[in-house]
Amino acid sequence: MKIKPSISGNSWIYVDNFLLNALDEDIGNGDVTTSALISPKHVSDTALISKGEFIIAGLTYAERIFHLVDKGLKFKALKKEGDRVRNGSIIARIKGNTASLLLAERTALNLLQRISGIATITNQYVVAVKGLGTKIADTRKTAPGLRYFDKYAVRTGGGSNHRYGLFDGILIKDNHISAVGSIGKAVKLVRSNNHHLLKIEVETRNLSDVRGALNAGADVIMLDNMTLEKIKKSVDLIKSRKNSVIIEVSGNMNLGNVRKIAETGVDMISVGAITHSAAAADISMMFD
Amino acid sequence: MKIKPSISGNSWIYVDNFLLNALDEDIGNGDVTTSALISPKHVSDTALISKGEFIIAGLTYAERIFHLVDKGLKFKALKKEGDRVRNGSIIARIKGNTASLLLAERTALNLLQRISGIATITNQYVVAVKGLGTKIADTRKTAPGLRYFDKYAVRTGGGSNHRYGLFDGILIKDNHISAVGSIGKAVKLVRSNNHHLLKIEVETRNLSDVRGALNAGADVIMLDNMTLEKIKKSVDLIKSRKNSVIIEVSGNMNLGNVRKIAETGVDMISVGAITHSAAAADISMMFD
Amino acid sequence: MKIKPSISGNSWIYVDNFLLNALDEDIGNGDVTTSALISPKHVSDTALISKGEFIIAGLTYAERIFHLVDKGLKFKALKKEGDRVRNGSIIARIKGNTASLLLAERTALNLLQRISGIATITNQYVVAVKGLGTKIADTRKTAPGLRYFDKYAVRTGGGSNHRYGLFDGILIKDNHISAVGSIGKAVKLVRSNNHHLLKIEVETRNLSDVRGALNAGADVIMLDNMTLEKIKKSVDLIKSRKNSVIIEVSGNMNLGNVRKIAETGVDMISVGAITHSAAAADISMMFD
Amino acid sequence: MKIKPSISGNSWIYVDNFLLNALDEDIGNGDVTTSALISPKHVSDTALISKGEFIIAGLTYAERIFHLVDKGLKFKALKKEGDRVRNGSIIARIKGNTASLLLAERTALNLLQRISGIATITNQYVVAVKGLGTKIADTRKTAPGLRYFDKYAVRTGGGSNHRYGLFDGILIKDNHISAVGSIGKAVKLVRSNNHHLLKIEVETRNLSDVRGALNAGADVIMLDNMTLEKIKKSVDLIKSRKNSVIIEVSGNMNLGNVRKIAETGVDMISVGAITHSAAAADISMMFD
Amino acid sequence: MKIKPSISGNSWIYVDNFLLNALDEDIGNGDVTTSALISPKHVSDTALISKGEFIIAGLTYAERIFHLVDKGLKFKALKKEGDRVRNGSIIARIKGNTASLLLAERTALNLLQRISGIATITNQYVVAVKGLGTKIADTRKTAPGLRYFDKYAVRTGGGSNHRYGLFDGILIKDNHISAVGSIGKAVKLVRSNNHHLLKIEVETRNLSDVRGALNAGADVIMLDNMTLEKIKKSVDLIKSRKNSVIIEVSGNMNLGNVRKIAETGVDMISVGAITHSAAAADISMMFD
Amino acid sequence: MKIKPSISGNSWIYVDNFLLNALDEDIGNGDVTTSALISPKHVSDTALISKGEFIIAGLTYAERIFHLVDKGLKFKALKKEGDRVRNGSIIARIKGNTASLLLAERTALNLLQRISGIATITNQYVVAVKGLGTKIADTRKTAPGLRYFDKYAVRTGGGSNHRYGLFDGILIKDNHISAVGSIGKAVKLVRSNNHHLLKIEVETRNLSDVRGALNAGADVIMLDNMTLEKIKKSVDLIKSRKNSVIIEVSGNMNLGNVRKIAETGVDMISVGAITHSAAAADISMMFD
Repeated sequence: MKIKPSISGNSWIYVDNFLLNALDEDIGNGDVTTSALISPKHVSDTALISKGEFIIAGLTYAERIFHLVDKGLKFKALKKEGDRVRNGSIIARIKGNTASLLLAERTALNLLQRISGIATITNQYVVAVKGLGTKIADTRKTAPGLRYFDKYAVRTGGGSNHRYGLFDGILIKDNHISAVGSIGKAVKLVRSNNHHLLKIEVETRNLSDVRGALNAGADVIMLDNMTLEKIKKSVDLIKSRKNSVIIEVSGNMNLGNVRKIAETGVDMISVGAITHSAAAADISMMFD
Repeated sequence: MKIKPSISGNSWIYVDNFLLNALDEDIGNGDVTTSALISPKHVSDTALISKGEFIIAGLTYAERIFHLVDKGLKFKALKKEGDRVRNGSIIARIKGNTASLLLAERTALNLLQRISGIATITNQYVVAVKGLGTKIADTRKTAPGLRYFDKYAVRTGGGSNHRYGLFDGILIKDNHISAVGSIGKAVKLVRSNNHHLLKIEVETRNLSDVRGALNAGADVIMLDNMTLEKIKKSVDLIKSRKNSVIIEVSGNMNLGNVRKIAETGVDMISVGAITHSAAAADISMMFD
Repeated sequence: MKIKPSISGNSWIYVDNFLLNALDEDIGNGDVTTSALISPKHVSDTALISKGEFIIAGLTYAERIFHLVDKGLKFKALKKEGDRVRNGSIIARIKGNTASLLLAERTALNLLQRISGIATITNQYVVAVKGLGTKIADTRKTAPGLRYFDKYAVRTGGGSNHRYGLFDGILIKDNHISAVGSIGKAVKLVRSNNHHLLKIEVETRNLSDVRGALNAGADVIMLDNMTLEKIKKSVDLIKSRKNSVIIEVSGNMNLGNVRKIAETGVDMISVGAITHSAAAADISMMFD
Repeated sequence: MKIKPSISGNSWIYVDNFLLNALDEDIGNGDVTTSALISPKHVSDTALISKGEFIIAGLTYAERIFHLVDKGLKFKALKKEGDRVRNGSIIARIKGNTASLLLAERTALNLLQRISGIATITNQYVVAVKGLGTKIADTRKTAPGLRYFDKYAVRTGGGSNHRYGLFDGILIKDNHISAVGSIGKAVKLVRSNNHHLLKIEVETRNLSDVRGALNAGADVIMLDNMTLEKIKKSVDLIKSRKNSVIIEVSGNMNLGNVRKIAETGVDMISVGAITHSAAAADISMMFD
Repeated sequence: MKIKPSISGNSWIYVDNFLLNALDEDIGNGDVTTSALISPKHVSDTALISKGEFIIAGLTYAERIFHLVDKGLKFKALKKEGDRVRNGSIIARIKGNTASLLLAERTALNLLQRISGIATITNQYVVAVKGLGTKIADTRKTAPGLRYFDKYAVRTGGGSNHRYGLFDGILIKDNHISAVGSIGKAVKLVRSNNHHLLKIEVETRNLSDVRGALNAGADVIMLDNMTLEKIKKSVDLIKSRKNSVIIEVSGNMNLGNVRKIAETGVDMISVGAITHSAAAADISMMFD
Repeated sequence: MKIKPSISGNSWIYVDNFLLNALDEDIGNGDVTTSALISPKHVSDTALISKGEFIIAGLTYAERIFHLVDKGLKFKALKKEGDRVRNGSIIARIKGNTASLLLAERTALNLLQRISGIATITNQYVVAVKGLGTKIADTRKTAPGLRYFDKYAVRTGGGSNHRYGLFDGILIKDNHISAVGSIGKAVKLVRSNNHHLLKIEVETRNLSDVRGALNAGADVIMLDNMTLEKIKKSVDLIKSRKNSVIIEVSGNMNLGNVRKIAETGVDMISVGAITHSAAAADISMMFD
């Protein structure tokens, strides 16, 4: 069941299944320590505290975890989604049954720290290209099973999402082209075999590919693993021909080179590292 | 269903459910590009290539992903689980139906890169304490839903696993102690309310806690967030009293300080970063 | 999980699973149009309007779909289940979050239109045999996965249900008889191998079969694909022998011939077309 | 789990779940008649026979149903997917365990008859517009839970698929426009909030809407419920402005008017009735 | 998913789900002892040995458990389902991977011992009424979740099954009658609201009830908790009126009184204790 | 999903899944009798009545079953969990919708009778060793799928739980020892391959085994199937060497010999029969 909560809808089914499974791997048959020591009537006041500076993201999901374990827990966020928090800030207060708080603590922190970590690194890229109109986008290089949350984290950090998966966007790569014979043939075939609401992106490795993609009528052209110079020439070529084509750059991006690439005028830079190699933000839960 | 494959058993149920779900988030209703372009009879030879040096881990799971998509794919590993691979090495060769290869590619790489990344950083800690007899252990700070694979990665990198979750090991923390009144009371209560095959670990913050844990008959004592000096004093105290107690250190560990801490003679150092902040190993799949 | 709501019980588990799956195939990762355009606070008043005249059926399920998407939506039915509605009638009013209304709209209409369509055609058959005491029954020829709803639609249209599936009613067909050797043997065997609360129906193709079924002590005799004349003779034969035997007619039924067949005095006429070939009733949802 | 078989991949997970559920609603705790009467060693030769002329479609799924019940059954198709079959043709032969054949029979026929029915009516529309270059497309008006199969049937009958659901195509309707204020604003907003591989379709009701959509840069314009005259004027307007815009017509389509509408030069005509009101093709399974 | 293996069909879906869940509760994250001690290449020969005399039943399910854990295990039954085995008999030999054998052992024995225990006590009742033509039937008093296996055990011990659950047989109890007003009304109502293939059983407590059930045309009459004398009178009354009515006795049955009750000429005696209070048969698995 | 309710937490997921499955096997497509006879508005007052004297256990789960069927039912327990009830006592009163009460009745009684039966027999063992400080423990010999409830019943009857399954406790048996070569080697290996919070139990059959286990540093020693005399000698040997070793006795336990064995000073006696052969407590539900 995949129905996911969105800003507008209210269904939590997909997210709940994920969170319950995550709780299950931690809790299994129960907390053998807590169930022996903490009275079922014992209550606590706790606070989520930042250790270090970062973008906080994922609070709604953390709150949901506490409520899945115990509907009676009170969760009050003191920071808004996407806020930059300083070291030692109180992010949220959670009150209620102590045993329930301990059952939910680790799973909630693990998710919150991951989402915040991805939002934080994404935001560093977004800041690096500020003012240039270039979008920072994610890739399909997410942790298995976590794509929904990883992509949410990217948006919250100010980045853009690329297609969700293989099913909701057309991206013609070199393997496709060589199997079919030419970019032109590939674009034509893919158009006639898909519904009319999908654009066509073509991955290119050199100027000749770019020319082929332009001639084939590609809607989006990805410049893959090109040098800065080649990127410049490609951008010039594309803009000289058809201004409405979207230009995406991909490959070997880092915080040192991303602004230079953005300055070439490309529309979008996609970065795998923001989802596959983000360090967790450091957050702890303090009991008063 | 949680039955997991072990060295000795053969059941893949838990792992398959996880992998299918991961494939599903990428594939959804199908690969709209490939299904339009690649003939169902087209076959390819591919190779998994390392980009950079790292410990390779997770090959069995990568192979499983290819076979879940298409039983006819031939997967041949050229490296063994836990091998250190150099930049540009061929890790495995996979042959068969091109469309199937493209369906499985991203999910297999995402998992392989994560597991190898965790094994690699774990191994750096293991190497750092070499010769001292101290174990490097993981924590419960794993990515939600990925604990099974994250803990496998730690073992493959030469680390040790701590308890899997709240259900298979007793760890008395300060919240437990303050709820009950004293370490002595907590140890007694937890023993009488659990089956007789579980040891009891007590988290301590200072020498007074350590003394309390020793008096209470704790089987394992965790020195949490202590300075090097306090760790030394704690170790001396414990060893002067009862040699069979296992000593674990936790908190603020990094590759710079881990050897010094190991030299105090502690049995085990647990490190959250090896699972929550490991960078992915870089691996790509090349089509011939 | 199959527990289904009935008039008396309150469990929605089976139905909810079905409806969530139906919502999922339409919504997947979310409504990419609405989530970009409609503010999460935007609310609307809508009405379900009939286009054409038909029997309305399935309102409880339509309401449930709206509530599964958003518990806050207000659904007010203006027609009762089984009512005949005229062109342009307001069937129900639904108010609340606009985005939620748009998420649920298509799935709710698809189900409502199907159930109403089946109820309407069923009712035409029921009207055609009015006053003769013959029941119109469904068959197992339902859309795969939709039997629960298709059979509900038949009841709401005034028809009767036949057995739900292979598990809750015994129906001996010619393949069974030829495998065993004779109707007599088949009836005997099937009785001794089943619990004592199931009646035995035998499918017959000619008078000799009917005689065999009577001799074997069948509780119900189905006259399958017989001409009107043969049906008459079979009815005479059965009534001359054992009045308590139930007589069912099946095969090649249409609105033109059904009354003539009912006039022979049979108890029940089963019609596959009412579930496998019903045209959808036309209903649309208007936003004020 | 949604992974679906495509021409190129081999995963049956989604389809198998659907088919097993469909089998389950028919079989439940078992076939009380057959298990009492047919020896487990009894085998039969059967044939699927057409009654009437139609397009046969869904044979792969019918075969799968037989194999899910019993891997030992031999299924041999004598017709190809999409073939037009005449009354009395042998469509396939299935041999093997008699009890298994009887368990699978009804579910396989129910699915095959539905898919063939949809393919047949779709094909009538396709034939009606032959030579004009206009595509016949489906809608989201499919039976709940059956979208995957209903859309497959449309393709097999020669039609085109529209978007699968709300998640993989942008379609701005009047409710969206009125909530935002103008077509121009809606197109801009929807573009900035979605990934760059989705085109934007705008639903229009009159020439003023069409003009608005053109000015906003819509990629696709749907002419909804317009008269033939208005359609003509809209087409003229669109083609005078931007030739690359795709034109779709929707609403009140039937086999009598579809050619006239296609002659206006529109690219695509979408028809709800081909999925929500198709009559089942008549197929029976004969035991030798 | 409920599809269950029958003599004739081949689907194991329902049973496999049950068995995997049972394995899961025992194995969880793995066998911590065996995985540390037994080499993955170690193989063993084992035998299932009876301790005490009993009816052996459930071998197919035990075999399935071993195969679910490891397809490579060889299971060879030396006894047939339903055989009476003596103390010390070899019931089956199982060879293969030692770790796999240890993973499956306890779950297989637990199921085999329960099924055999139920078959054994059932058989004692069957033997007790030998020669009288009275059937021994089970009830719905099975262990939660185990009804499929409990009812199988009863059949294997020579008993008959009553209805499976509330859905496949009509049984009117006193609560039903008092809610409706009279037995006559209840029988009439229940007949008109159910499909025509279900018989109607009425529970009676005294001769007046029996008379009412006869007058109402009940197909089956249950004599509930009556004295031997009342049973005799009821049987006389029923047989004097309508010979084809099936007579069931229920309540307070034991091995001491069952034959006397059978001698009254009743058709069926149902016994709750054979499923809710059967002692397990004692079986152990010996490693050579 | 395994998350289970504990004293302190509030999640019912695991238990609900189990209970719904149990309800499903009884209810299936619905109660064909009740839905025809009982008005949806009909309400009843009922009472659970004991027939015989026993320990009542499982009331929370019984209540949950009624609420899963219908949240509106009022369940009021008049006895506390673990109370000894006399014949004819009112255990609980349940009021509300009659049809809902009838849907839940049998499943609730089946579970309540099983749990109470196990608690009762466990308590007989506990009483038999009263004053000696010996614990009565369960084993893994539970009914497949019911371990969670069977172990709960044992605790409620005053017994102790042994390990839950293979995953949360180490128990070295003779097969393990013979595969490795010696008890000493096995203990060493198992310690180095598991996390540091698990104790090690060794199964012994004679004094030589006991000596080996002591030398190897086993934390717990199980005396398996030994005579009373051997048990005495083993206890003397163990206590002369290391007082902290826990001693468990297993095998051939009954209410006649259990006190004698407890008098030897062992810590724990485990009894398979309390879970695999407990007779159900007799409880009925009376409608006023």
